[in-house]
Amino acid sequence: MKRIPLLLVAVVILAGIAVFTSPASLHADDSAAPIFVTKIPPGYRDWRLISVAHEEGNLNSLGAVLGNDVAIKAYREGKLPFPDGTIIAALHFSHVPSAENNKVFGQAQSFVPGAPTNTQFMVKDSAKYAATGGWGFATFIDGKPAAPASMKSCFPCHNQAKASDLVFTRYAP
Amino acid sequence: MKRIPLLLVAVVILAGIAVFTSPASLHADDSAAPIFVTKIPPGYRDWRLISVAHEEGNLNSLGAVLGNDVAIKAYREGKLPFPDGTIIAALHFSHVPSAENNKVFGQAQSFVPGAPTNTQFMVKDSAKYAATGGWGFATFIDGKPAAPASMKSCFPCHNQAKASDLVFTRYAP
Repeated sequence: MKRIPLLLVAVVILAGIAVFTSPASLHADDSAAPIFVTKIPPGYRDWRLISVAHEEGNLNSLGAVLGNDVAIKAYREGKLPFPDGTIIAALHFSHVPSAENNKVFGQAQSFVPGAPTNTQFMVKDSAKYAATGGWGFATFIDGKPAAPASMKSCFPCHNQAKASDLVFTRYAP
Repeated sequence: MKRIPLLLVAVVILAGIAVFTSPASLHADDSAAPIFVTKIPPGYRDWRLISVAHEEGNLNSLGAVLGNDVAIKAYREGKLPFPDGTIIAALHFSHVPSAENNKVFGQAQSFVPGAPTNTQFMVKDSAKYAATGGWGFATFIDGKPAAPASMKSCFPCHNQAKASDLVFTRYAP
């Protein structure tokens, strides 16, 4: 007699799961569409440093890559794939010469962050972002999400870094 | 009758101060010599980000500048001079191309941190480092303090940034 209530509980749970997942499961052609992160993870500016980066060309950026506690722990332990809950933030600024520093150095050699160009995030949730390797991608410009069309290249590009779970940035010691 | 014990207390305090300061006060020619920081501040790799930096020329470095809590608070509040207890860390790495990233981008544009070149610190203690603008300077290479002779240029160089309390790095938003 104890099995009926348990079965009932299981049915209710499954029904609940069906309700929560129905928007995706009912639209088969949407289920492979990437889901982008549309809210800036709170407190990211206080996160610890993963590494820094410099891109020439059209990007012309100087960047800092920060990680939340889950990310930093995984990096330091060399754990791959990154666990769910990992968030990696890339703060990009224009790469500009520092007139003040160059004056002191006596030559043009010093570059510093200019205006922010964008802030990007990778959020690991292997269920929610299953269609894009378990990662949700986000780009914010002036605090607003970038146009979805511009986000379509995130996953195919990052997917080329399969050996490091789609993450290009290495930990700087 | 109460004045005598108080006077005695004052004399004892002054004597104590004289004892503690005597090594410097007895050697007038040493008192202006800069004092360098010879121990790596613990936990600095967990500090929050101030900014990033790129130096060309002989330095050829990509760097991250981190601050302890006192430093970050002062930066965010725009407080100058920096209060005693401020520590600023500059982690410098060689500026090297990333073959992996360039392959994905399809062109040579990406630079990442290579081997660490040095780790530098500025420690604010207006009494201890009075001879060098209140800042103690430190450079560590492979975890060891750099030769004192190489440190003599720190203060005169940083002293050119008087308007920002001898600190060149601005806070990146």
